[in-house]
Amino acid sequence: MQQSKTLKDLAEYLGGTVCGDETFRVNGLAPLESAGADKITFLANPKYAAKVADTGAGAVLMAPGGESFGRNIIEVSNPYLAFAKLLTLFYVHPHTPRGVMPEASVGIGVSLGEGVSIYPGASIGDNVALGDRCVVHSGAVVYAGVTIGDDTTVHANAVIRERCRVGKRCVIQPGAVIGSDGFGYAPDGSGYYPIPQIGIVVLEDDVEIGANTCIDRAALEVTLIRRGTKLDNLVQVAHNCQIGEDCMIVSQVGISGSTRIGNHVTLAGQVGVAGHLSIGDNVIVGAQSGVPGSLPANAGYSGSPVLPHKEWLKSMAVVANLPSLKKTVSALEKRIAALEAVLPSN
Amino acid sequence: MQQSKTLKDLAEYLGGTVCGDETFRVNGLAPLESAGADKITFLANPKYAAKVADTGAGAVLMAPGGESFGRNIIEVSNPYLAFAKLLTLFYVHPHTPRGVMPEASVGIGVSLGEGVSIYPGASIGDNVALGDRCVVHSGAVVYAGVTIGDDTTVHANAVIRERCRVGKRCVIQPGAVIGSDGFGYAPDGSGYYPIPQIGIVVLEDDVEIGANTCIDRAALEVTLIRRGTKLDNLVQVAHNCQIGEDCMIVSQVGISGSTRIGNHVTLAGQVGVAGHLSIGDNVIVGAQSGVPGSLPANAGYSGSPVLPHKEWLKSMAVVANLPSLKKTVSALEKRIAALEAVLPSN
Amino acid sequence: MQQSKTLKDLAEYLGGTVCGDETFRVNGLAPLESAGADKITFLANPKYAAKVADTGAGAVLMAPGGESFGRNIIEVSNPYLAFAKLLTLFYVHPHTPRGVMPEASVGIGVSLGEGVSIYPGASIGDNVALGDRCVVHSGAVVYAGVTIGDDTTVHANAVIRERCRVGKRCVIQPGAVIGSDGFGYAPDGSGYYPIPQIGIVVLEDDVEIGANTCIDRAALEVTLIRRGTKLDNLVQVAHNCQIGEDCMIVSQVGISGSTRIGNHVTLAGQVGVAGHLSIGDNVIVGAQSGVPGSLPANAGYSGSPVLPHKEWLKSMAVVANLPSLKKTVSALEKRIAALEAVLPSN
Repeated sequence: MQQSKTLKDLAEYLGGTVCGDETFRVNGLAPLESAGADKITFLANPKYAAKVADTGAGAVLMAPGGESFGRNIIEVSNPYLAFAKLLTLFYVHPHTPRGVMPEASVGIGVSLGEGVSIYPGASIGDNVALGDRCVVHSGAVVYAGVTIGDDTTVHANAVIRERCRVGKRCVIQPGAVIGSDGFGYAPDGSGYYPIPQIGIVVLEDDVEIGANTCIDRAALEVTLIRRGTKLDNLVQVAHNCQIGEDCMIVSQVGISGSTRIGNHVTLAGQVGVAGHLSIGDNVIVGAQSGVPGSLPANAGYSGSPVLPHKEWLKSMAVVANLPSLKKTVSALEKRIAALEAVLPSN
Repeated sequence: MQQSKTLKDLAEYLGGTVCGDETFRVNGLAPLESAGADKITFLANPKYAAKVADTGAGAVLMAPGGESFGRNIIEVSNPYLAFAKLLTLFYVHPHTPRGVMPEASVGIGVSLGEGVSIYPGASIGDNVALGDRCVVHSGAVVYAGVTIGDDTTVHANAVIRERCRVGKRCVIQPGAVIGSDGFGYAPDGSGYYPIPQIGIVVLEDDVEIGANTCIDRAALEVTLIRRGTKLDNLVQVAHNCQIGEDCMIVSQVGISGSTRIGNHVTLAGQVGVAGHLSIGDNVIVGAQSGVPGSLPANAGYSGSPVLPHKEWLKSMAVVANLPSLKKTVSALEKRIAALEAVLPSN
Repeated sequence: MQQSKTLKDLAEYLGGTVCGDETFRVNGLAPLESAGADKITFLANPKYAAKVADTGAGAVLMAPGGESFGRNIIEVSNPYLAFAKLLTLFYVHPHTPRGVMPEASVGIGVSLGEGVSIYPGASIGDNVALGDRCVVHSGAVVYAGVTIGDDTTVHANAVIRERCRVGKRCVIQPGAVIGSDGFGYAPDGSGYYPIPQIGIVVLEDDVEIGANTCIDRAALEVTLIRRGTKLDNLVQVAHNCQIGEDCMIVSQVGISGSTRIGNHVTLAGQVGVAGHLSIGDNVIVGAQSGVPGSLPANAGYSGSPVLPHKEWLKSMAVVANLPSLKKTVSALEKRIAALEAVLPSN
């Protein structure tokens, strides 16, 4: 059971303002539709404001100025962020350090920070350095020479290959692979000669990597994911890429080798990006788009190959009506032929 | 070696009828082209009926009324299903329980059904409950508080995260991840604040999950896959999705968060579905399609963005001939200009 | 530190010719832009020839006839291949055999070649045969009855299921799954009956499989990847496929069941190929393309559905201008109506 808190305490924690009974206590969060009287809920999208009237919740997080319908309210400037922070407050408990558990394997020359947990079946290679409070779950494999910063969690069966570097407060979801060999081969006249991939992957602080996502090590130097960037599940990042800060790379995106992506870029699901490109800051690329060339900053793009988003919308509207356009053209041909038949050509 | 069976026995097992020598014995199945005289084969697609004349098989499963070419036949209403059932009969042997094998790790408070097998290197967290005859292969990791129903198989290096629930007779292929954190972040003005994902995943009975497929846990409640649904390899199911009964979700499909999919839906390979949509029962979506909005039931759709399947076929036929359409329009422009030159405008 | 070598030695190793100081020593390779005086670099793309003037490298690999800018040069016919070979020479050291390490699990009836290494947490099933110098990293799982040829490396948490066969000098990246069950179900009137997948996967010699790539076992016989073919990360190969020699299958490609692909075929990233097709030798399919039917040999294709590459380029150019084409047609309609108004219809 979560401990209950007064609305006054929660408002202080969030930097918000209570409208209603400050002493009211809640013990957790729930959605507008299903919350009980002992829970706080939230209104992030004004479209659902009318649901506040009917919610069974004991209190509601909302932006200043919303209709309270007589509910206890905590007004906060960013209700969605406040909801996330209360979820953390109520439900995320500090991990109790477990140390090196039985059936875990730890190599020689390993440096372990304070309060680490290494679960059964995890393998830590030689000369690895783990920061304080790192958690390595069962079956995760950390190859030799890897360094991992404080407070990073490596989930079950994730793999971090030799010499890669992971920052602080990173989360690596299950099955993710960091530092697999880049896909590089030199044609030798008959087949392909594998090019040794001797570089590494560097994940800066606060990077999160989704389940079964793959980030290839550089051929020579570094594949780099900068601070705060989040990758969803089943994403492919090829060798030598650089991805900037605070990007959102959604599931099943593929980024080809040596491409550089700016800061605050969003690539929606299943986007493909060709190699050796440059994507500017704040670019948004729509789902399933294909990016064959570099993209200027501060704009949205869609389609395969991509167009500026608004142009793509117009083109797609025509694509859906192409059979009708073709019929129109055929009809015009006949009408012109009819006109030509009654007029001598010039 | 498989034990041989008479055609009479097989016909009884399948609810079919022998035409030919009921006492003939076969010891297995093989394709029409390569079967030997000690094997039974099957004709599922009438297009290949002529191959029955040339097969080396000792007997053939086929639908009633087909030409036997003098072969021993077992007539069954659904030859493909009969073939699958005989494959099971001849080749799938009950798993011999192995118990908890050396090098497996089992936490505290774990409940193990009768006849379970936990292979070397598997990790079972605290307070897990495994039903009768469950098999957990090497390297699979079952986090704390998970429950798994009878006769479910978890293949090597699959991961089931904390508190998720898996039904009876499920099969989880190698490397699949059930219950990874949903991709949810609240912008906080500069970067992204991770929203704790405190929900779970529920797989009902007879669900099968492909290799390296990922199913994210819900933010608050349940990501749900209903009875009988099959997911192929490398599929992404985001948080809070619900997928109905007896769906076929083919490889590399991605389904965004909070989308609800009806019963008997087929999503072909590499389809992408946006979030917060509703897909009706019996919908079929063609390969590589992109679904940006909800889709009514009982229809087929293709394209990115999707159109009704037949409209998409017509549009694609025009797309392939767009350069020719453009030339036609240019020619019409000239012919009109010529007409206009000899006629004073009105 | 790598051992240093004279340019004379390197030229002999590569079959090339020194222009400059034969006795000059280098101890490694680096890119044109960042190489120091103790490194050799390479010029593979003549487009960057001017960078040779400014490189800090002590020597440059280039094709005969290039401008040396006074640098020490090794002329070789294929500088990119030479670069790859020197990377191997300088940086790839023979693996020191580790034997069966503690916490590894080896079943009964296992045959181990000379100089094998089986890392902590790896699981080798019963009756497996590993060739000489095989390396099986932590967490990799080799099911019963698998055979693996000499000098093959299986990285962490890869899975090779029962009875599959892997050739010599193969590399299986982390998390790859070889031999998962094919996605085969027989509709039984209400739901789906799983068809036992009793075949195997065969990887011939020199095949490389990317991280988290999945190759399903055949229903009855063999899913086959022929000699020298390389698969990138997150690729899906469905049951019963055959892929020829020296193919390059780029990341996130999906190949549906029973399709046959010739030799020297390139499928670029995120391509989808339907089932039961035949793709001819030397075919190149562009990124994100969808292949719904068989493709003749020796040609390039793009688009979804694919067109011959040049036709696709022309169609895409029109797609980007469809709104303008539509306006042109609307304008023509008005001009024709104007002409018709002054001319009696015929």
